[in-house]
Amino acid sequence: MTRLYDDPSTFTDDMLAGFLDVHRDTVVGVPGGVVRATETPPGKVAVVVGGGSGHYPAFCGVVGHGFADGAVVGNIFTSPSAQDAYSVGKAAAGDAGLLFSTGNYAGDVMNFTLAQERLRREGIDTRVVFVTDDIASAPPSEVAKRRGIAGDFVVFKVAGAAAEEGYDLDGVERVARHANDRTRTLGVAFAGCTMPGGAEPLFTVPPGRMGVGLGIHGEPGVGEDALPRAADLARRLVSGVLAEKPAGSGNRVGAILNGLGTTKYEELFVVWRTVAALLAEEGLEVVAPEVGELVTSLDMAGCSLTLVFLDEELERLWCAPADTPAFRRGQVRPAAASARRTGAALGGDATAIRPSTPGSRACGRVVVSALEAMAAAMKDAEAELGRIDAVAGDGDHGRGMVKGTQAALAAGRDAAAAGAGARSVLVAAGEAWAAKAGGTSGVLWGATLCAIGERLGDDREDVSGSDVADAVLAGLEALTGLGKAKPGDKTMIDAFAPFAEVLAERVRGGAELPAAWRDAAEAGEAAARATAELRPQVGRARPLAERSVGTPDAGATSLALCARAVAGVLEPAR
Amino acid sequence: MTRLYDDPSTFTDDMLAGFLDVHRDTVVGVPGGVVRATETPPGKVAVVVGGGSGHYPAFCGVVGHGFADGAVVGNIFTSPSAQDAYSVGKAAAGDAGLLFSTGNYAGDVMNFTLAQERLRREGIDTRVVFVTDDIASAPPSEVAKRRGIAGDFVVFKVAGAAAEEGYDLDGVERVARHANDRTRTLGVAFAGCTMPGGAEPLFTVPPGRMGVGLGIHGEPGVGEDALPRAADLARRLVSGVLAEKPAGSGNRVGAILNGLGTTKYEELFVVWRTVAALLAEEGLEVVAPEVGELVTSLDMAGCSLTLVFLDEELERLWCAPADTPAFRRGQVRPAAASARRTGAALGGDATAIRPSTPGSRACGRVVVSALEAMAAAMKDAEAELGRIDAVAGDGDHGRGMVKGTQAALAAGRDAAAAGAGARSVLVAAGEAWAAKAGGTSGVLWGATLCAIGERLGDDREDVSGSDVADAVLAGLEALTGLGKAKPGDKTMIDAFAPFAEVLAERVRGGAELPAAWRDAAEAGEAAARATAELRPQVGRARPLAERSVGTPDAGATSLALCARAVAGVLEPAR
Repeated sequence: MTRLYDDPSTFTDDMLAGFLDVHRDTVVGVPGGVVRATETPPGKVAVVVGGGSGHYPAFCGVVGHGFADGAVVGNIFTSPSAQDAYSVGKAAAGDAGLLFSTGNYAGDVMNFTLAQERLRREGIDTRVVFVTDDIASAPPSEVAKRRGIAGDFVVFKVAGAAAEEGYDLDGVERVARHANDRTRTLGVAFAGCTMPGGAEPLFTVPPGRMGVGLGIHGEPGVGEDALPRAADLARRLVSGVLAEKPAGSGNRVGAILNGLGTTKYEELFVVWRTVAALLAEEGLEVVAPEVGELVTSLDMAGCSLTLVFLDEELERLWCAPADTPAFRRGQVRPAAASARRTGAALGGDATAIRPSTPGSRACGRVVVSALEAMAAAMKDAEAELGRIDAVAGDGDHGRGMVKGTQAALAAGRDAAAAGAGARSVLVAAGEAWAAKAGGTSGVLWGATLCAIGERLGDDREDVSGSDVADAVLAGLEALTGLGKAKPGDKTMIDAFAPFAEVLAERVRGGAELPAAWRDAAEAGEAAARATAELRPQVGRARPLAERSVGTPDAGATSLALCARAVAGVLEPAR
Repeated sequence: MTRLYDDPSTFTDDMLAGFLDVHRDTVVGVPGGVVRATETPPGKVAVVVGGGSGHYPAFCGVVGHGFADGAVVGNIFTSPSAQDAYSVGKAAAGDAGLLFSTGNYAGDVMNFTLAQERLRREGIDTRVVFVTDDIASAPPSEVAKRRGIAGDFVVFKVAGAAAEEGYDLDGVERVARHANDRTRTLGVAFAGCTMPGGAEPLFTVPPGRMGVGLGIHGEPGVGEDALPRAADLARRLVSGVLAEKPAGSGNRVGAILNGLGTTKYEELFVVWRTVAALLAEEGLEVVAPEVGELVTSLDMAGCSLTLVFLDEELERLWCAPADTPAFRRGQVRPAAASARRTGAALGGDATAIRPSTPGSRACGRVVVSALEAMAAAMKDAEAELGRIDAVAGDGDHGRGMVKGTQAALAAGRDAAAAGAGARSVLVAAGEAWAAKAGGTSGVLWGATLCAIGERLGDDREDVSGSDVADAVLAGLEALTGLGKAKPGDKTMIDAFAPFAEVLAERVRGGAELPAAWRDAAEAGEAAARATAELRPQVGRARPLAERSVGTPDAGATSLALCARAVAGVLEPAR
């Protein structure tokens, strides 16, 4: 929802004041909107765009070189008045006439048409082009009823580039109409937006559903459907837009995958991956695609796909340089002389499989079973580990442990299958854990497994309980050296140290490995539970440390769970 | 929430695939992340940044000329592995060494340090700088424990600009550390983010509250408070950051007001308005401020203020050109020769007060009373009008009618106080309505009041009921001419036409104006209710038209409410 405002009734003015301060080098305010900070040069047609606000960067964000000369800024989702449009048009116009362009909404049509009439009476040749890209808003037989959504951006960009190139007013109007005829958009929405000061969204979409064809002011859509996977959404948007490919258009398209406000860049890139593949399958070549927030609707969730079917002229204008507060195209400096990279993958070295003894290979197979048990335990515990990590951390521990144990298991299994001994299975597993899981726990577990492996070696004929206990102590040493934490700092060391020490003590006292390990795992579990009483000392701000008292450490807990899982593997079969 | 993904476990890879396709002219993928599409030139230090993903445009979005040479991309909110950092560092490094820089998180510190060691072993001189700008994460006495948030952007930008300028590795490392020492951030959050595939947010903030000092991965903050007005939030952020102004720093600052994902540009500009004023009050000059989404946290709601206290070197590097997928600075083409605008306001002409008769002035005062009644009625009906407008429109009708009637009342009152007759009061009111309310209803009501005024004139000695009825018919004619709707199209005309016709008929039949108006208002109300059975015919897509059946038209309803309110004014005082 929209949360930050001073007075909802002055929201647009307050927003403009901040915008104009930030972008004072590029734009200045005039009554009704903004114009470029530089005068329109003699002979240049002025292009003034506009509509209601709440769509940033549309439309004040695209005033600048190569794009609009001015933007008329109405209240949120509300057409500016004819007076506003007149005022901005008058300020922007030089001696070569004026093109107004807005989306095709009744209020904008009336107000911009009235402003056009007034400017003409004052001797300024003025034209108006209304954008009708939204294919969901009326059938192809009633194109003139369609509203303008993200395709506004294409038409405004093309018109602005044409004016910058020196087209006369007839030419700018012609190419703007041509761009509109060649531009199609289909959008979906997942959640509504709230007005500043509003307690309820303008509209809602049931959870797990999407509205198809919703307008950028929350106007109801033409259908509703289950929220699909990203790839299926891409398919739906591409097929919807391509069903209206204009007759006679070629195989080159400009494209916008537009986010409406709370559908983030990461999600848009995931969708774009499939959009790009589908367009390529259709034999279309995408020129200068834009993926991001260009025409938003406050905090609405959703996205739209716009295609402009290019010819030579439209492609040149779509690709022409632009330099505005929110959108730039073209190189900031001359193309670098540097060589272009090939982009060839830089593969890491595969872990070498060293010669090994049968005894060490047998130990390696036990390690694989242990990794299987750990991966299963982490999968079961993922949600709970995330929950306790979120108390003083970022809640990613469960996810990281699942990724790490699965990667370790896969790599260990491959190594064992290739005939690796204990060391090589553990090193392969540790390296994979660190590489795939990332994060703090990934690197620490990875280093620990590698150290255990190095101590066990590939060359023992037999691996004794004492060998295992020594190797685990070597793992503890590696962990301590890398993590820099001390016992009592509320880290995995608080569980690992008692585990490793009890294991060594019981083995030295003559216990068999399975029994010693079970006792050690119990000590680790008790110690992990006891971390609930500790305050973290390393890398945590004091308030977070205070907050974490009463919750056990996530890293210590996951270590104890892994130790218990391995104990089950070591028990003699019954 | 994060809704669009194919497989949560491959989200980062899928995101990168889309990103690399869109920005293929600027960046290429390597194992573990991305590097510039051009080779690092001989003699240039490579700057490689990174951390977990979910923060776009941080950090893959800032790879390019003048900024980073590469970005290591971990999973969402998770440190990349040492192998990833090694791989990207190796790919990016030329012959002049490598600077790694990340936020100060345990996982990043370990993994990037391990990668540094490996690269050094291979003969690549490598340094690491960890950013510690978040003042809420540890007290000033423990700066080394602070984490990096939006200040990452400043340090990375400065280091990238220094490397581009030709600094050697010692110099790039030195200025990066210096930028970090001079950079402070304080952030707040209003709502948590969800991981791809997650059903629940990582954390929640109670409605109407804000978390102070929350981390960009949702780590708990240091306090919680009521969500303030935008200006009060600005005050809190500015005073918090300025409390840690570094000793010896001057009066020039770079600034970032960063949005975390769902706090939109419009809101950020409202906050910035006050931030800019407060910084000016403190005697600080802001250089090249950035207001927008630079370091996000998926769909988290919140924002942060970063200040970098500049000296001459830092200012030059902060302002240096950059050209990356998500961030550019510097002019795309040489500065235009065009004259800079003065930015002087272009005032509209004040409505001229014409000479008027006492009778017309008396009528003008009745008009003011009528406008008062209409404004009160619209205030009462605002929510309901919004609700019915949202069925097939954008739900802004109630807001627009409130703005319009209030603006009309203020202008009409001023005109009457200045001695205006009926015409001039109505024209002033109509022009103000159209100018301030904007939208469709604003322009239509404005034109209608102006036409009524023009027909009444300022020069009648007495205004009869018949004069009023004729003027209302003139208003209907203006409305129909401008709006192009026909009766039955489900617009305000459906209520206005019967109202005007009954008024004319009853007056012609000998009724006094109050009684005639009351009957006419009743006819308008009945007609407005009957619009529930109509389908809109103008400017609405067919599915929206279907959906609106059963709901009365908002414009007809507000017209009927206004007519009824004026009836109360015309009744003789009892």
